[in-house]
Amino acid sequence: MSIDTLTIHQVGIDTYHENVAYLNRNCSIYRAEGFQALSKILVSVNGARLLAVLNVVDDNAIVQPGELGLSHQAFKHLNVAEGTLVTVNHAEPPKSMDAVRRKINGERLDQADFDDICNDIVETRYSKMEMAAFLVATGQNNLDRDELLYLTQAMLQTGERMDWHESLVADKHCIGGIPGNRTSMLVVPIVAAHGMLIPKTSSRAITSPAGTADTMEVLSNVNLKPVQLLDIVQRERGCLVWGGTANLAPIDDMLISVERPLGIDSQGQMVASILSKKLAAGSTHLIIDIPVGPTAKVRHMRQALALRKLFEFVGDRLNIHLEVMITDGRQPIGMGIGPVLEARDVMQVLNNDQQAPTDLRQKSLQLAGRIIEFDPDVRGGQGYAIARDILESGRACAKMNNIIKAQGEKKIDLQPGKLCFQVCADRDGIVTDIDNFQTAKIARIAGAPMDKKAGVDLFKKLGDKVSKGEPLYQIHAEFPADFNFAQNLATQNNAYCIGDEEQVLKPLIDF
Amino acid sequence: MSIDTLTIHQVGIDTYHENVAYLNRNCSIYRAEGFQALSKILVSVNGARLLAVLNVVDDNAIVQPGELGLSHQAFKHLNVAEGTLVTVNHAEPPKSMDAVRRKINGERLDQADFDDICNDIVETRYSKMEMAAFLVATGQNNLDRDELLYLTQAMLQTGERMDWHESLVADKHCIGGIPGNRTSMLVVPIVAAHGMLIPKTSSRAITSPAGTADTMEVLSNVNLKPVQLLDIVQRERGCLVWGGTANLAPIDDMLISVERPLGIDSQGQMVASILSKKLAAGSTHLIIDIPVGPTAKVRHMRQALALRKLFEFVGDRLNIHLEVMITDGRQPIGMGIGPVLEARDVMQVLNNDQQAPTDLRQKSLQLAGRIIEFDPDVRGGQGYAIARDILESGRACAKMNNIIKAQGEKKIDLQPGKLCFQVCADRDGIVTDIDNFQTAKIARIAGAPMDKKAGVDLFKKLGDKVSKGEPLYQIHAEFPADFNFAQNLATQNNAYCIGDEEQVLKPLIDF
Repeated sequence: MSIDTLTIHQVGIDTYHENVAYLNRNCSIYRAEGFQALSKILVSVNGARLLAVLNVVDDNAIVQPGELGLSHQAFKHLNVAEGTLVTVNHAEPPKSMDAVRRKINGERLDQADFDDICNDIVETRYSKMEMAAFLVATGQNNLDRDELLYLTQAMLQTGERMDWHESLVADKHCIGGIPGNRTSMLVVPIVAAHGMLIPKTSSRAITSPAGTADTMEVLSNVNLKPVQLLDIVQRERGCLVWGGTANLAPIDDMLISVERPLGIDSQGQMVASILSKKLAAGSTHLIIDIPVGPTAKVRHMRQALALRKLFEFVGDRLNIHLEVMITDGRQPIGMGIGPVLEARDVMQVLNNDQQAPTDLRQKSLQLAGRIIEFDPDVRGGQGYAIARDILESGRACAKMNNIIKAQGEKKIDLQPGKLCFQVCADRDGIVTDIDNFQTAKIARIAGAPMDKKAGVDLFKKLGDKVSKGEPLYQIHAEFPADFNFAQNLATQNNAYCIGDEEQVLKPLIDF
Repeated sequence: MSIDTLTIHQVGIDTYHENVAYLNRNCSIYRAEGFQALSKILVSVNGARLLAVLNVVDDNAIVQPGELGLSHQAFKHLNVAEGTLVTVNHAEPPKSMDAVRRKINGERLDQADFDDICNDIVETRYSKMEMAAFLVATGQNNLDRDELLYLTQAMLQTGERMDWHESLVADKHCIGGIPGNRTSMLVVPIVAAHGMLIPKTSSRAITSPAGTADTMEVLSNVNLKPVQLLDIVQRERGCLVWGGTANLAPIDDMLISVERPLGIDSQGQMVASILSKKLAAGSTHLIIDIPVGPTAKVRHMRQALALRKLFEFVGDRLNIHLEVMITDGRQPIGMGIGPVLEARDVMQVLNNDQQAPTDLRQKSLQLAGRIIEFDPDVRGGQGYAIARDILESGRACAKMNNIIKAQGEKKIDLQPGKLCFQVCADRDGIVTDIDNFQTAKIARIAGAPMDKKAGVDLFKKLGDKVSKGEPLYQIHAEFPADFNFAQNLATQNNAYCIGDEEQVLKPLIDF
C-alpha cells in the first residue's frame, strides 16, 4: 500500500451519464480544493482508469477523509470492489478536446478527429460541459456533409454491429416529434408476415411520452439477450425489442442526455444519430419517416427536403438502401398518447376493430407497403395492397401474437390511469389545430412513459366538429403530484385551437 | 402544509458554482427518475425560487424520501432554514436560452439579449452545460465588436459599481499567462507615492499558480469590507486587495469556472471580462499589459494588435481612458513562481536589493511610468524617471509598508516549502527557451496558490549560460502527494530548452 492511496466507496447518488467523484475536504493525502478548481480528476487502480468531475464533501457520513466516493455511474465504470485502494491524479483534459477547440475555431475535422472524440465520449472521459461544447460546435450548419459522414462512422464504431447473414434486412425509423405515432408495432408484424426480415430494435422515450420499446413493453418483454433475439427473429422474421442490451452506437444516448436539456436539435446530429444506430443494427434497407407540420420537428417542406438529401448522402456512402417518406405531421397520430393508450390503438388496428384510429392504420399500411416493395418479387406499386391484405386477413394480428409470445407475453391490462381529468371545448366550432409538442408534454408530465398507464386520450382530431363543453381529451395519471402538474399545464395551454372550417390547418406535404 | 411538500436538508457536498438538488429515489411525492431525464427542477418556497440540476439518491442517510437535499451552493442561494417546507416542479429552461440558441444559429444578439443571459447566469439559472453552450456560441470570432460592447455592459450590470468621487482613478491589468508577473505590487506603491489614486482590486488565481491577491496575502490581509477599503484608499491613495468582497461583475468568476476546464479562451470574452471588472471597480484610467511570446496567451504581434483594437473600441465607448502596452512575454517575469516566492521578489525590488530580479523591476517601472503620465502635471516622457526616483529613494517601499499595515500586516515568513527538488541542465549551453505554461503548471501542481510556500524558484533565465548538471530551478512543496505530482511533471517536461547562443528566442515586440 502506497502512502497516496484512498479506499473506494460507492456513494448512493445517481449522477445520470456523468462520472462524479467525492473527496472529503479534510483528506490529508489529496488537497480537495486544489483539484476542484481544475474540475476533473484521474482515478487509477491497477490498469483501470476513470476520469471524474470532483465534488468536495464536508460530511464524513457521506465520504470519510481516507475514502474516495464514486457516484453509481463512476463506480460501475471503474468496475472494482468497494474498499479497493486507488490513487488520484490531476486529469489532463481528454486529448480530443483539441479537435473540439479547432472546430470552435471554424476548422474542418477529419475522420480521425471524429473517431477520437466519439471514443473519448463513450469511455466517459468527457464531462457534460465538454459534451455541450462538442454539440454546440458541431450543431446547426457547422458540419458539412462529409464531416457528417465521418461523425456517423465514428458513432457507429463506438459499439457492436449486428450481422443477420441475410441480403435484405428491412427497417424503418421516424425522426420523432409526433405523439402516438406507433407505426412500427404495425409495420413489423405486416412485413414479417410477408416473410421479410425486420428485426426492429427501438429506443425508450427520453423526453417524449413513449418510445416503441415503452409501448411494446405493455404487451411483452422487450429486454432480450442477443442470443434470444437471434432465435426469435429466425423463427418469426421480426421482433420489437429495446436496443439497449445490444450496445448499438452507445454514444447516442450519452449525447442525447446533453442535447435535450439544452434544447439544441441539429439536423446533422439527427442524421448521424439515426443512421449510426440503424447500421449498427445490421439494417440493409431502410425507410425514414419525416413528418412535417407547424409543431413537428420539421416545420417546412424545404427543410424536409434538405434533411432528405442529408440522409441520402450519408446512407449511399455507408451502403444502406434508404428511402425517405415525407408525411403529414400536423397533429398526433392515433388517439392515445402514453404506453397503455398507444398499445390499445395498435391492438385495435391489428384486430380490424371499427373503433381503430384510421390515420394510424393508413400511415402504417403506407410505410409497410413501401418496405414490402423492397422485395424483388413484388411489382412496383403493389406493396400497399399486399400490406392491407395481410392486415385485413388477420395474418398481421397472428404474427404480432406470435412475436409477443416469443418475446414473453405479459398479463395485458389496457386500462389507463385511474386519476383522470377531461379538458373540454370552450366554444362551438371545428378543431383547427392540435399542438404536438404541448400534447406530448402534458402526457409526459402526467407520468408517461414511466407510468405506463399515464397519458392523454384524444377524443377529437383536426377538422372534427365540437360543441362548447364537449370533452376534447382526457388526461390519465397514477400519482397525485403528476396529475396536478398535468392539470395545471393543460389549464395554461390545452394544445387545441377551435375555429371555423376554413381555418383548419392544411397538410404541408403537398409540393 | 400541502400534500406535495418536502423538507429542505442541506447535504454536505460542495458542487462548485452549480446548484444541485438531491431527491430520494423512493420519494412517494415526486417521481425522481421522471424529473431526472429532464435534468432540472424548480424549487419553490414562499417567494423564493431556485433552479437546480437533479441527482437521484439511493441512500437514506444522505437524503430521506420526504426530504429535498441541496448542495452548499444551492442551499446558500435559496437562503431558507433547514427543515423549511418546499414544493418541487418541472423547470422550464431559462428564457434567455432562446437567445443562446439563436446565437448558435448564427444570429446577432442585441443588448437586451445579453442583459437577459447575464442576469439568468448570475441568478444561477444556468447549468454548467448551458454556460458551456453560451461560451462556445459566443467564443472565438462569433461576437462582433458591437456585441462585445453589449456583453461588457451586461456583465458590468450583474454586480455593484464603485464610485471613488475623483476624476482620475488609475488602474492596470495584465491579460495573464506569464508566471511570476507581479508588477501590480510594485506599480501600486509607486503610483500611490506619487499621489495618484490607485485602488487595486485583484482576483485570486483560478488555474494559474498565483494571482496578485494570493501573493499580497503573504504580506497582509486582503479581504476587506468596502468601508475599510474606502478608509485605507483615502489615507494611502492605494491598496492591494481581493475584489471578491466588493461583488464586482460576479458573473465573471462563474463563466471562468466553465471556460477554464474547457480550455476555451476567446479574445472577445477576455476583453468583456477585464473591462467589466475594471469599470465596476470605478477605474477611469487604465493600462492593459499584453505580453507576447510563443508560450504566452498572445503568440503573434498581429493578434496582439487585434486585441488592442478590441480593448480600445469597447473602452472608448464605455468612457474609460485606456492605453495598451505590448510587452515581452517570452519567459516568466522575476525568479519566483508561487505566492511566497513572488512576494520575496517584490520585496527585493522595493528594498533596492542587489539580488532583485531586473526584469520585474524594469517592467514595473515602465508600467508605473505610463500611469504617472496620466497625471496632467507630468510632462510626456517623464513618467519613467519619476517612477524610478520614487523606487530608488525608498518612498515606494515606505508606501508599501503603510499599505500593508493599513490592510493588516501578517507575520511575514518568506521561507519557501520544505520539500524541495532541483531540476538540472542535461547539457552545457545557453538557455534558449522557457515555457511559461509548463513552469506555471509545475508550480500549480506543487500546490500553489493554496499552499503559499509551494512553487518554482528559477535560477536561470533566457540567454544564461549553464553547465551540465547545474540547477535550472528548484520546486518547493508542502505536501508529499503534490510534491510527487510536480516532480513527475518536471521529469516529463522540464520547461527549459538549452542550445546555442543564436537559438535564444528573440523578443516578439519589435514591429
